[in-house]
Amino acid sequence: MKEQIIRQVINAWASQNKAVTALVNKYDDAVYLKEVAPGRNRAIYIFGHLIAASDNLLPLFGLGDKLFPQLADLFSANPDRTFADIPSIAELRQAWETVNSTLTEHFNTMQPPDWLSRHTKVSEEDFAIDPLRNKLNVLIGRTVHEGYHLGQLNFLTV
Amino acid sequence: MKEQIIRQVINAWASQNKAVTALVNKYDDAVYLKEVAPGRNRAIYIFGHLIAASDNLLPLFGLGDKLFPQLADLFSANPDRTFADIPSIAELRQAWETVNSTLTEHFNTMQPPDWLSRHTKVSEEDFAIDPLRNKLNVLIGRTVHEGYHLGQLNFLTV
Repeated sequence: MKEQIIRQVINAWASQNKAVTALVNKYDDAVYLKEVAPGRNRAIYIFGHLIAASDNLLPLFGLGDKLFPQLADLFSANPDRTFADIPSIAELRQAWETVNSTLTEHFNTMQPPDWLSRHTKVSEEDFAIDPLRNKLNVLIGRTVHEGYHLGQLNFLTV
Repeated sequence: MKEQIIRQVINAWASQNKAVTALVNKYDDAVYLKEVAPGRNRAIYIFGHLIAASDNLLPLFGLGDKLFPQLADLFSANPDRTFADIPSIAELRQAWETVNSTLTEHFNTMQPPDWLSRHTKVSEEDFAIDPLRNKLNVLIGRTVHEGYHLGQLNFLTV
């Protein structure tokens, strides 16, 4: 039963990935350089931000180093338009697929005790106090985070 | 272990509820009559939509009738501005609290087999084919749905 419940969370994450993928393939590349609403982040920035957030799951879950460490500076640590030179939407689509397929491979081998173990940003002491600060909780949060930005990306118009 | 995993999903739902509550208490009431972005839904409509979606969990989970059945027509079945006469933001805040506290009471008594049982919109035959169409899956989806609209509500400015 616990395997099924964890599978449902992974499925929900995969479902949000799929929805984001559909959105970033919906329009001509130039459209993603537009703000999703007047004065708001550009769609390409939000997309890069989602890739950086997912890429960060690799070190956070102790699965390895980030695949695209440069994305954190470009799309998370600094606001939109900080850097003039950012990857193209085509390059970002490729990075998105690579990060998601890498995570999916890892997720498919993780067992329930792995999911309920602490992530690398919480200490053993803090985890003993709050055992809900585990990897599964992070994945639920990231899934909601994708939904959050998808709601914004859906405001994009040609 | 399964109880803990289900608890984490309920916590994620409660956390989104809290974030929505904070947002609808952030500004003067009149601000919620503004669109979240030019040409988009008004904040009050999105808030009403979230209440209707949560209220619908009662019949969907076989827990009883909707508490505020009139909200579905006003905020889900029809687009924003279809009706001139809608509840005030203060009335909606009250409905939101009532729906959430009612659901929380039910959720606290539901056991893992309840969560993994079918919701009332899927037939026994279809559920046998796809047992992931259960109540827990609906709650995960509704949690992401709240995140989706919260991303939009956060575009609201005074």
